[in-house]
Amino acid sequence: MPIREGDYVLLVGDGVRSVIKVVKGSRINTIRGIINGDDIIGNEYGIIVRTSLGYEVAILRPLITDILLERGGRVTQVIYPKDAAQIIISAGIGPGSKVAEAGVGSGFMTAVLAYYVRPDGKVYGYDKREDSIRTARRNLELLGLNEWVELRLRDVSTEGFLEKELDAVILDMGDPWNALPSATEALRTDGILVIYVPTVNQVIKVITAMKGAGYVNVRMLDVTVREWKTEPNEVRPHTWINAHTGFLIIGRRTIRPAAQPTE
Amino acid sequence: MPIREGDYVLLVGDGVRSVIKVVKGSRINTIRGIINGDDIIGNEYGIIVRTSLGYEVAILRPLITDILLERGGRVTQVIYPKDAAQIIISAGIGPGSKVAEAGVGSGFMTAVLAYYVRPDGKVYGYDKREDSIRTARRNLELLGLNEWVELRLRDVSTEGFLEKELDAVILDMGDPWNALPSATEALRTDGILVIYVPTVNQVIKVITAMKGAGYVNVRMLDVTVREWKTEPNEVRPHTWINAHTGFLIIGRRTIRPAAQPTE
Amino acid sequence: MPIREGDYVLLVGDGVRSVIKVVKGSRINTIRGIINGDDIIGNEYGIIVRTSLGYEVAILRPLITDILLERGGRVTQVIYPKDAAQIIISAGIGPGSKVAEAGVGSGFMTAVLAYYVRPDGKVYGYDKREDSIRTARRNLELLGLNEWVELRLRDVSTEGFLEKELDAVILDMGDPWNALPSATEALRTDGILVIYVPTVNQVIKVITAMKGAGYVNVRMLDVTVREWKTEPNEVRPHTWINAHTGFLIIGRRTIRPAAQPTE
Amino acid sequence: MPIREGDYVLLVGDGVRSVIKVVKGSRINTIRGIINGDDIIGNEYGIIVRTSLGYEVAILRPLITDILLERGGRVTQVIYPKDAAQIIISAGIGPGSKVAEAGVGSGFMTAVLAYYVRPDGKVYGYDKREDSIRTARRNLELLGLNEWVELRLRDVSTEGFLEKELDAVILDMGDPWNALPSATEALRTDGILVIYVPTVNQVIKVITAMKGAGYVNVRMLDVTVREWKTEPNEVRPHTWINAHTGFLIIGRRTIRPAAQPTE
Repeated sequence: MPIREGDYVLLVGDGVRSVIKVVKGSRINTIRGIINGDDIIGNEYGIIVRTSLGYEVAILRPLITDILLERGGRVTQVIYPKDAAQIIISAGIGPGSKVAEAGVGSGFMTAVLAYYVRPDGKVYGYDKREDSIRTARRNLELLGLNEWVELRLRDVSTEGFLEKELDAVILDMGDPWNALPSATEALRTDGILVIYVPTVNQVIKVITAMKGAGYVNVRMLDVTVREWKTEPNEVRPHTWINAHTGFLIIGRRTIRPAAQPTE
Repeated sequence: MPIREGDYVLLVGDGVRSVIKVVKGSRINTIRGIINGDDIIGNEYGIIVRTSLGYEVAILRPLITDILLERGGRVTQVIYPKDAAQIIISAGIGPGSKVAEAGVGSGFMTAVLAYYVRPDGKVYGYDKREDSIRTARRNLELLGLNEWVELRLRDVSTEGFLEKELDAVILDMGDPWNALPSATEALRTDGILVIYVPTVNQVIKVITAMKGAGYVNVRMLDVTVREWKTEPNEVRPHTWINAHTGFLIIGRRTIRPAAQPTE
Repeated sequence: MPIREGDYVLLVGDGVRSVIKVVKGSRINTIRGIINGDDIIGNEYGIIVRTSLGYEVAILRPLITDILLERGGRVTQVIYPKDAAQIIISAGIGPGSKVAEAGVGSGFMTAVLAYYVRPDGKVYGYDKREDSIRTARRNLELLGLNEWVELRLRDVSTEGFLEKELDAVILDMGDPWNALPSATEALRTDGILVIYVPTVNQVIKVITAMKGAGYVNVRMLDVTVREWKTEPNEVRPHTWINAHTGFLIIGRRTIRPAAQPTE
Repeated sequence: MPIREGDYVLLVGDGVRSVIKVVKGSRINTIRGIINGDDIIGNEYGIIVRTSLGYEVAILRPLITDILLERGGRVTQVIYPKDAAQIIISAGIGPGSKVAEAGVGSGFMTAVLAYYVRPDGKVYGYDKREDSIRTARRNLELLGLNEWVELRLRDVSTEGFLEKELDAVILDMGDPWNALPSATEALRTDGILVIYVPTVNQVIKVITAMKGAGYVNVRMLDVTVREWKTEPNEVRPHTWINAHTGFLIIGRRTIRPAAQPTE
């Protein structure tokens, strides 16, 4: 597939890693020298080009995580790819899923969700901060994913969700226990609730609240991804890693039979 | 959504966790007593029922990972959910992706891939063992995912892949370096190669081969998911965890301009 | 150094690992065949002997951790070698240190402490259970370390420690916050307190209590030791590891100047 | 115990952590204001003093690891406390042990070893770089531990060790397989060899060489210490951790009976 003007491309070379938009006649500056936009256009993706200083740089189609990590703006990224991946598989979110998320922050998780619920699912993104909604919207547009997302400026703890029968709800906020009743109402009767919190103080409150509200199969997970150096003669884990982002707590809503009293 | 005869359901209770098929007039044995199939049918998913011994059990829609883990048969499960999740997000596999996988084993990863490429993508699953193909086919049918998978009894190292222009290729075999030339040919020009191996001896061979074949952005990852006990008064990591399954090595194919000689 | 009758030796071979006492004329059964006690006595440590079935077994001087792990009895081992090592270095415990420990359990940590405070330090081991004191005493005798330990059947939470000016106090009990005032009194003015608890519920209580009691430099650690398979052609982490034993919380006592009021 | 002029003390306060030498009439600058040396001298260790800006700082006896980490100089610290602790316990190094170490680097591990072999053991520290020997000597003097260490400017791979019958040898160098024959000769017949290397390429060579040289009980370990934030209302792992320093490989020398040929 040839690279066309206006495409976003991922540049990868020695010390080079960025996502840029291809423009005719442009000169792309990298720390390894200049690349001409015209040398890229019309070539196949995967092509290796040379910079003005003679270094090799590969031109690749970016993944949505590449675009978000490189161009998603300066709002704190709350949910990392490693946790996003675990949430999606643990909650069974896939094509066709209807999912709500509160709060969206910069829209990183929102975008990943939108990517996976396509083409017939939907993501409802809530945040009580207008600047988060604005940043998330811009990121979703950049990625061409806004069609699958409804963004809502609304405090779910006090005002609730507008949807019902959702497959999953994801709470990424400081006081998720306050949004638990709203989330339960918005879920289908065996829907999946995912809560993401950084401290164990919050963890204890969340677990207590979820068990009290009848959730079952409540699991708590802590994902670590160790990245390694990949020089053939020097294969070893990187010295410093991001060892903690948040704890994931996942459970399933249940209901009780109307007639049968729970002694 | 009411539970119907013939549905697979996930039972979750104190010490109870299984996936069963709902049959009218059946008696389901659990270690906490018996549940009557007729007490389940027609109820909403999420319903809590009581066993003959008075214990509560929740009846839930199973995720595909629940079904695979509980009923996927006794062939060794090679790629775990934690690694499957990381592969999917790191390789950008989603709705519409065209992906090949060699070898399929019991079909766990194949099923997860099929779930995420729906409705218009495709998974090509290769294995040189007939019993693996058979088990994978049975598991895919059980999950209703066979429509999105072509299974092929074929040794990719010697006979190659039948497809071209694939978005991603996943190699889960003992000697993936032998399949590397075939995988490269089957990928689109900037396609993503994922290799999954358990030992660092293999890791070194894989990295050397991938770099030699022009792959860039070669990353190596080691995913650990620590699962915690979720009693509100006793929140702590489980004592024993599955700390190692395999190392993930991920890279992107590149091509060189035809006319431009590489010094 | 030749092996003498009465020595404890560590046998290491393929599938063989045990600590036994060498007896003249004895026949030692292993899963790889029989070894004659007489074939061992008088040889150098490190000698490789052959079993009746032709397998090779090495005869080694056991470390104290080998003896404790193999012959320490069936009382739950509470503090693992990995955590014992971290405690010793984090608390600066070494030759000459005066240390108290409550509760001693089977005496594993007590023995390690005694080993490191030799020859002029002392360990004061408290437990409120008589059977723990008895087991710990037996283990210390087995190791020849009882000279450096005073064992005391006493509840430190209600009755306090008998010592003053200790370099370090280690609390390994369910409700360490109840023993905190006693521990503080027993420590020297800048002494080191180490608390070992398995749950984060306890962690929060401990940290709150320690900060409230004026401890500074309060650190919390979580030690993981991943053990690898060491076949030259198959180097990889073991699949299952002991991923959690307890959290270590370490802090230093302080005092306030008598005259200077703390507004 | 009162603080005397000339003592090294550890200052701990909000954002303050340093080791300084107490001098009469001195003014100690910290980022929280000034402390007068005269306000410290004569007080008990553990005292909380106030800076000129009103902040509280505790004055503590430093551990040897505090001194090394704060004042050990700018030579790369090769073996971290977490690994030093694991080496000491895994190799059974304690009071009375005779141990050699090659190379000493800045002397961090050497100092820890010296601390634990006191009062009647000895550490033999080898390095082929004169500046390492010099830095190590300065650090050992600073700590008052030089009495227990012999430093030797010598390449153990080509020239061997000068000692025999050592309890343990620690190799911390890039090509430890070249020093393996010398190390084996220097060990007692069932002595313990510890090798510390950062890459898995080295690991494979080390394991192959050790097994080939008759070492048994060869273990490989990978120690991770996760440090947590200890605010009572915000208990959580630190975001970034030092996730990899080196792999530890530990084994025991053996000998074969002179007369008995190995099949």
